[in-house]
Amino acid sequence: MAVRYLEDIAAGATFTSGSVRIDKDEIMKFATAFDPQPFHLDEEAARETIFGGLAASGWHTAAITMKLMVESDFKPAGGIVGAGFDELRWPRPVRPGDELHVEGEVLETRPSKSNPRRGLIKVRTATMNQRGEVVQLSVGSLVVQRRT
Amino acid sequence: MAVRYLEDIAAGATFTSGSVRIDKDEIMKFATAFDPQPFHLDEEAARETIFGGLAASGWHTAAITMKLMVESDFKPAGGIVGAGFDELRWPRPVRPGDELHVEGEVLETRPSKSNPRRGLIKVRTATMNQRGEVVQLSVGSLVVQRRT
Repeated sequence: MAVRYLEDIAAGATFTSGSVRIDKDEIMKFATAFDPQPFHLDEEAARETIFGGLAASGWHTAAITMKLMVESDFKPAGGIVGAGFDELRWPRPVRPGDELHVEGEVLETRPSKSNPRRGLIKVRTATMNQRGEVVQLSVGSLVVQRRT
Repeated sequence: MAVRYLEDIAAGATFTSGSVRIDKDEIMKFATAFDPQPFHLDEEAARETIFGGLAASGWHTAAITMKLMVESDFKPAGGIVGAGFDELRWPRPVRPGDELHVEGEVLETRPSKSNPRRGLIKVRTATMNQRGEVVQLSVGSLVVQRRT
């Protein structure tokens, strides 16, 4: 799919990513590097925690969501550049063996006030598991190039 | 430092993490796995982008922030368990060689309405580089155990 400038993107536009399966080793490897807590590292210890079993770090889910978006047909001009998020939630844990995909929707688009070559688009994403349950919700703003 | 239950945590409490240096190879390795875009992968190509040079993925900055928090003296009972964020921003890019640390503040604490054994604390964090510039800001809610 072609790269899209601000002028090519309309509120209401949607996209769906491919899917990826997350295994136990990946969950533990990410957690060892970035979120070394028992519920992300040790199946036995995880049973006694709020998660009731091994679960991926929320930041791992967020990073996987980004990878799925970068590899999707959603191609804003200048790349997928996050300015920030107004909301980021993990309503359910990601478990070993879960298969995730991302569904996104453009909520609004607007030119930048400070830079005439750029705009901002507000995007809502839902990261879903193989049962259609939402494991991450986000509403964030991306910087997108305008046509020159 | 001892683990802290909801009753041990007060609004206004602050914490400061240790610091960690981020090198170019780590930036590229994280980006290859989770955010494979030119400004995170290729110094030459990055010069022509909005970042004007190689920069870490925002999700890498977020993951490093988590690691620094887990390793800090901030020890809520039950672990650092994010329920979600009301705000997450990356006002400045993280560059190769930057040294990051996290400063946090508890904004409010409250018992859970649905579970008498838990509470929520709202925490604001600023991730800073070696020049004292903020590279990430977050306001999020953590689940904390209550004393039984």
